[in-house]
Amino acid sequence: MRKGQTGAKVSPACPGQDPVNPGQLLETRTGFKPPSQTRSFKNKVPREKEPEPGREQPVPVRLNPDSRMCSTPSVRHQLDRVAVMGGTHGNELSGVYLVKHWLQDPSELQRATFTTTPFLANPKATKRCVRYVSQDLNRSFTRALLTSKGTEDSLYEVRQAKKINQLFGPRGSADAFDFIFDLHNTTSNMAACLLSDSEENVFTMHMCHYIQKNTQGPCPIYLYGCPGPENPFLLSVGKNGLGMELGPQPHGVLRADVLSHMRALVACGLDFIDLFNQGASFPAFDIVAYRVIETVDFPRSPGGELLGSVHPQLQDKDFCPLKPGDPIFQLFSGKEIFYEGDATIYPAFINEAAYYEKGAAFHKMKKCTFSIPPLQAPSASAP
Amino acid sequence: MRKGQTGAKVSPACPGQDPVNPGQLLETRTGFKPPSQTRSFKNKVPREKEPEPGREQPVPVRLNPDSRMCSTPSVRHQLDRVAVMGGTHGNELSGVYLVKHWLQDPSELQRATFTTTPFLANPKATKRCVRYVSQDLNRSFTRALLTSKGTEDSLYEVRQAKKINQLFGPRGSADAFDFIFDLHNTTSNMAACLLSDSEENVFTMHMCHYIQKNTQGPCPIYLYGCPGPENPFLLSVGKNGLGMELGPQPHGVLRADVLSHMRALVACGLDFIDLFNQGASFPAFDIVAYRVIETVDFPRSPGGELLGSVHPQLQDKDFCPLKPGDPIFQLFSGKEIFYEGDATIYPAFINEAAYYEKGAAFHKMKKCTFSIPPLQAPSASAP
Repeated sequence: MRKGQTGAKVSPACPGQDPVNPGQLLETRTGFKPPSQTRSFKNKVPREKEPEPGREQPVPVRLNPDSRMCSTPSVRHQLDRVAVMGGTHGNELSGVYLVKHWLQDPSELQRATFTTTPFLANPKATKRCVRYVSQDLNRSFTRALLTSKGTEDSLYEVRQAKKINQLFGPRGSADAFDFIFDLHNTTSNMAACLLSDSEENVFTMHMCHYIQKNTQGPCPIYLYGCPGPENPFLLSVGKNGLGMELGPQPHGVLRADVLSHMRALVACGLDFIDLFNQGASFPAFDIVAYRVIETVDFPRSPGGELLGSVHPQLQDKDFCPLKPGDPIFQLFSGKEIFYEGDATIYPAFINEAAYYEKGAAFHKMKKCTFSIPPLQAPSASAP
Repeated sequence: MRKGQTGAKVSPACPGQDPVNPGQLLETRTGFKPPSQTRSFKNKVPREKEPEPGREQPVPVRLNPDSRMCSTPSVRHQLDRVAVMGGTHGNELSGVYLVKHWLQDPSELQRATFTTTPFLANPKATKRCVRYVSQDLNRSFTRALLTSKGTEDSLYEVRQAKKINQLFGPRGSADAFDFIFDLHNTTSNMAACLLSDSEENVFTMHMCHYIQKNTQGPCPIYLYGCPGPENPFLLSVGKNGLGMELGPQPHGVLRADVLSHMRALVACGLDFIDLFNQGASFPAFDIVAYRVIETVDFPRSPGGELLGSVHPQLQDKDFCPLKPGDPIFQLFSGKEIFYEGDATIYPAFINEAAYYEKGAAFHKMKKCTFSIPPLQAPSASAP
């Protein structure tokens, strides 16, 4: 559904995304409330994060209050259209089955002030229960691929990326969806990791803060950077977005606890948008987030064969401090490999199954504390 | 290497299985010690298993002391040739990387009294890091498939099954290898599960008992039954064998702790064979094992779509008692499904990734205690 076509209250039989044919869109909306009809959210106002006892405290980085997110304007208007993507990787089953369920029964996605569209991003990979069919869909949103001449012979995921860009973008345009959630799982012990492009994305940082304060369990924030027009990620199609990486969960497995957790996170993110749309403003706060520095590959033979595995002392320690001299790999020969950097890092995506082929045993992350400026109440929807 | 061709002391450069071409065999043997040169194993003699406090105690099943395993003769002779299979499923990485390592450096497989041959069972699936290429190799050892006319057009795993049967069998023949270990991982929380065909397989039950007493952590025994000539499993190629299912480990992931554990189990199994060959006899004992009854599928729509997941109260509870009335599934709608059987069972393979396609959310198991007769010291190798 394009911008301008207002969403209607939805039932599974409404003109929307057919569960049998997920290429069709389905929106959920219970009706728009003007900003004057705000709900009270006093109890949900973000508080300052308490320092973790005994853990190194990072140096705060203070932002210019006027700073904007990299590729999209700062959010000053109400959000009108939101999408929730599952199955961007077909074997990450929490998002796959949540979206399939919401396509049948979207009631829990409905909020007063905006429409939400669940969408199964890679149906063919989902059907085969594989990450992708031809190439990683979540690396297929580069300008080069999106503007390539698409034919029936194009790689499946390139065609799918163009289709998603057409339905939810086009990227960078006024027609793009206001916000996209992209739901993922990881085999790494990353809890309920929230992925944002940059700490300069004030709206999403406020959403992360709100989710941290209003859901159970840790929600570390992973800042993946902002590669601009060559940003290959699905999230880049919308005006704004948030990724979720819940783990550990084996690919091809659906755990009830992980599914429930993801469901609660999405609900909380939608609640935040609803509060914002209803006229809420959110005060400034400091927040810890982890910025990716680089990836570290496994030890390999000249032919590329693994020579060992992630060290048992590093396994499952995502977002914990790794100091110079700590062990990182254990070779099959028994030898240990130690971290030789000159500063403490905080690894993430440790031993993620899908990253063996990408040459990444873990991501080196820098722990930062950012001072996030207030989020002002919005004006009405953009014209 | 066929029976009659004696194994020689092995180095990676010896005539054996080329790591680059794992279709070729490699044996490890340090030289044969006659039974008179037995090592003391008094400290390793199996002891009676202590009852677990607070857990239901199953009724002992007493065997005829003359009972034999189903498809192979009882072991009365020394074992001469042993194989260790990894990568029967190409994305179960503990066995894959142990075998790849042993193909480079087989020293830790060497024992005094027999040869050991590491073998990568499904190289093409291993290379792609998938369970199988065309069909499940570990369901491809039926008589019908093994005797089918093989051509280049045959399914890859059928050709591979024939090849394995030729190299390590033929099944049921005097030429077959004396013992095969088949190394697997599971996404289920099954610890170091040992798989035997039947409690009547006295030799393997003694090996399981020996492994339970001489390695760390629980090693529940899973009895998979004895389908006879239609036995589709790789293990059926040898005169005898033991499967190992270590988990939880996501498929496509290599965890150092799981790899070390599997390595210790294989070493212990080889030690047991070595002790037996050196003239040890082992006394009778009682042992708990779990016999598969049937499989239980996920709740599904008429079209086959999942309607829910394994209940969080059942998840990770492999080999724990499940009583009538206990919850087993949680539907996406929120509804719970309860176990309706009339007796307590002990589920296994709960939420195994590879079994979604096989229609199995878990296996119903019966907990039994068996009285295993003594294992007599062997005579010399079979003529």
